[in-house]
Amino acid sequence: MHEHQSPGYVDDKADLLKRLKRAEGQVRGIARMVEEDVYCIDILTQVSAATKALETVALNLLEDHLSHCVAQATAEGGPVAEEKLREASAAIARLVRS
Amino acid sequence: MHEHQSPGYVDDKADLLKRLKRAEGQVRGIARMVEEDVYCIDILTQVSAATKALETVALNLLEDHLSHCVAQATAEGGPVAEEKLREASAAIARLVRS
Amino acid sequence: MHEHQSPGYVDDKADLLKRLKRAEGQVRGIARMVEEDVYCIDILTQVSAATKALETVALNLLEDHLSHCVAQATAEGGPVAEEKLREASAAIARLVRS
Amino acid sequence: MHEHQSPGYVDDKADLLKRLKRAEGQVRGIARMVEEDVYCIDILTQVSAATKALETVALNLLEDHLSHCVAQATAEGGPVAEEKLREASAAIARLVRS
Repeated sequence: MHEHQSPGYVDDKADLLKRLKRAEGQVRGIARMVEEDVYCIDILTQVSAATKALETVALNLLEDHLSHCVAQATAEGGPVAEEKLREASAAIARLVRS
Repeated sequence: MHEHQSPGYVDDKADLLKRLKRAEGQVRGIARMVEEDVYCIDILTQVSAATKALETVALNLLEDHLSHCVAQATAEGGPVAEEKLREASAAIARLVRS
Repeated sequence: MHEHQSPGYVDDKADLLKRLKRAEGQVRGIARMVEEDVYCIDILTQVSAATKALETVALNLLEDHLSHCVAQATAEGGPVAEEKLREASAAIARLVRS
Repeated sequence: MHEHQSPGYVDDKADLLKRLKRAEGQVRGIARMVEEDVYCIDILTQVSAATKALETVALNLLEDHLSHCVAQATAEGGPVAEEKLREASAAIARLVRS
């Protein structure tokens, strides 16, 4: 894990935590549906919704990261900027392929 | 929600519940990372992992649904079979687009 | 490649070919944009559109496959049905992960 | 469409055009498979491959865009930088959701 100054998402922390709390509840709700033998299609609908909720968290994190960490590093330029851009592109690729 | 005979995933229930428990823990872990101001990219890596875990649950549910509910309905034929196939295709589309 | 009776998509062949012709044109159009140094974001918009067009082709093919090849095999039951279901689930997983 | 100085992908133009040419050929090949009544699953495999090829084009374009257009704008700061970051995030969201 990286240690560094305050993260790009610091202003959106409350919203991120609220979304993650809801996503956690969705996953728990899906488990309850499985325990109660609910119809497969209805469970699949909830799994797609939970996946979308997590994607929104990721997209918000990424926007904050680009606007703060990457923007700041590119303003300074040099190898740190290149590493930040490389890292961001790799994270985007993981997101697109997941 | 639909009520019906025992679901197609009944034999995989324990595995599904174990995967969902782990996914729930992953989402809770992501929230903790946000609370602790962990670096954005490290959080994004965990979000991609949790999204993939949920996709695996969905793919396993879908395989069971096709092998049991849809297979049984198509063996009997008629409008029930058509509805099951339509439903399954719509669920696949949601999964692909999420 | 498999040889077999007429495919599940036989009734939708004209529509599939029309969609594929359009997708081919979209990809050629994207190449032209690159040649003409068009702004990256405008090209990315077209790549997302072409990707979605291909996904629609895949979803339509899959629906036909489930409704004909898989339905027919499951009506007969036995190892052929199991193989068809396994194949369909693997194809869905590739689509979800691509 | 935007008009502007040379695009971020200018150094990767040859590679992008080669990939797009190949993707175009893949889509044409898929159409031929449909014309020849090839088995659905074999066609689906090729559609997933073509979709992945287009995603790689998009990810490469995005990396170049971030490293040049966005980096340059953020070095200058101000409203142009904000617009570039907003645009890039919207393009990433379209890519993730397609």
